[in-house]
Amino acid sequence: MRPLILVSNDDSIHASGVHALIDRLVKFGDVYAVCPDAPRSGQSMAITVSEPLFLIPQPDYNGARMYKVSGTPVDCIKLAIHHVVPRRPDIIVTGINHGSNASINVLYSGTMGAAMEGCAFGVPSVGFSLTDHAEDADFSQCDPVVDHIVEAVLKNGLPQGVCLNVNMPSIGHPVTELRAAVGCRAHWTEEYREYTDPHGRKFYFLTGDFINDEPENESTDLWALEHGFASVVPVAVDRSEETIPTIQWLDEACRAYRP
Amino acid sequence: MRPLILVSNDDSIHASGVHALIDRLVKFGDVYAVCPDAPRSGQSMAITVSEPLFLIPQPDYNGARMYKVSGTPVDCIKLAIHHVVPRRPDIIVTGINHGSNASINVLYSGTMGAAMEGCAFGVPSVGFSLTDHAEDADFSQCDPVVDHIVEAVLKNGLPQGVCLNVNMPSIGHPVTELRAAVGCRAHWTEEYREYTDPHGRKFYFLTGDFINDEPENESTDLWALEHGFASVVPVAVDRSEETIPTIQWLDEACRAYRP
Repeated sequence: MRPLILVSNDDSIHASGVHALIDRLVKFGDVYAVCPDAPRSGQSMAITVSEPLFLIPQPDYNGARMYKVSGTPVDCIKLAIHHVVPRRPDIIVTGINHGSNASINVLYSGTMGAAMEGCAFGVPSVGFSLTDHAEDADFSQCDPVVDHIVEAVLKNGLPQGVCLNVNMPSIGHPVTELRAAVGCRAHWTEEYREYTDPHGRKFYFLTGDFINDEPENESTDLWALEHGFASVVPVAVDRSEETIPTIQWLDEACRAYRP
Repeated sequence: MRPLILVSNDDSIHASGVHALIDRLVKFGDVYAVCPDAPRSGQSMAITVSEPLFLIPQPDYNGARMYKVSGTPVDCIKLAIHHVVPRRPDIIVTGINHGSNASINVLYSGTMGAAMEGCAFGVPSVGFSLTDHAEDADFSQCDPVVDHIVEAVLKNGLPQGVCLNVNMPSIGHPVTELRAAVGCRAHWTEEYREYTDPHGRKFYFLTGDFINDEPENESTDLWALEHGFASVVPVAVDRSEETIPTIQWLDEACRAYRP
């Protein structure tokens, strides 16, 4: 039986990035794409809890079944699993995102939110991103990377609770090298521009500069991207077990509690 | 100098849970509460990327400065840090959430999203939740737990990149015991109810049953809650470094890539 491949993104069913992704995936299996009906960037793992979700079939694209959802990327994955795909997907692939999801951007990305939802559901999941926000970005430079990673994940699987965050630099041709990397420590500075409305109320738009906090660290995703390589970062959806021992005072503080 | 305490939540500035939290915090330091102007449950770490955010001062409450924001819990933390607090907070405390954020709920929770944002910014951060969704839930049963944890975190700090997810059972009186725990593996089944609109289009509302996948595991947060204890789960915001070695095929697959 051909693999069942579930696709989503956060740039919407109309984005060229998801079409470029589907073009690569149809040779690996039967593809179902369930994507937001409009851009939902920055939605992280948000879910729609108290509004209705419309799930609207779209015309097939290159052999793939297409659906749009009036919700977030995670809504798309959940609805797809429960009401679209005929059986459990063999792999969930998200993207290709228009813009980087490297470093701390992974926390806010709807494309990676969808991959993390797939991972939480227990399906091997991968998110792909290209460091070019343009609507007409050249996704052909992603082709061999997508092929290579999807083939490897279909063959090898992924550990329970771990998905992959793959970022590719926009350099006009496919990368020559993939790097297994860690998410780079970074932060945004001066994050908001302030305005005043006609009634004297302040309002704000998100903006700011991205600062790499460890530019010399060769093991990070940002280092790989800045050197023209693609980065492959494993992302753990839940690592509380390994984290407890790092807080040396926690057990003692819990035992010291008196109501 | 008294500690500077930044507070947020996802149930809105009007929720009784955040007022109950502030009532405990004012004795520890100077409190600034920056919360959504309406409920934003399920917003995870979502950010508002292409709409304006209004930041509106509210009347003080019990000595705390209060603000409401027309955005997500993470928007609240980011705006607060850049445009509200006079200096870097010493601690960020979110909640008290109306309803459990234990187990996989931590992934979707806006209250925990705000705590994770604080953690990503490098400030010790804690989210509190009570397992009662009612608007008039009895938060007095949380008092000694909040006091104990906030005091311990102010004294001991937290490791870089780790925040705390504290859940308390609604049992009519304060818990007698705190348990350092891991997030329980669980899943939701039958997640959507299907409807048909007057035009024949299908739509869906989120619903479903929560299934504990490891009910016998005494180290989980759900086990603690079900036995009348509060759970304290360390949540890692980025653990890619420790995760790479768990994917044994990854390095070899990256080296095998040819464009």
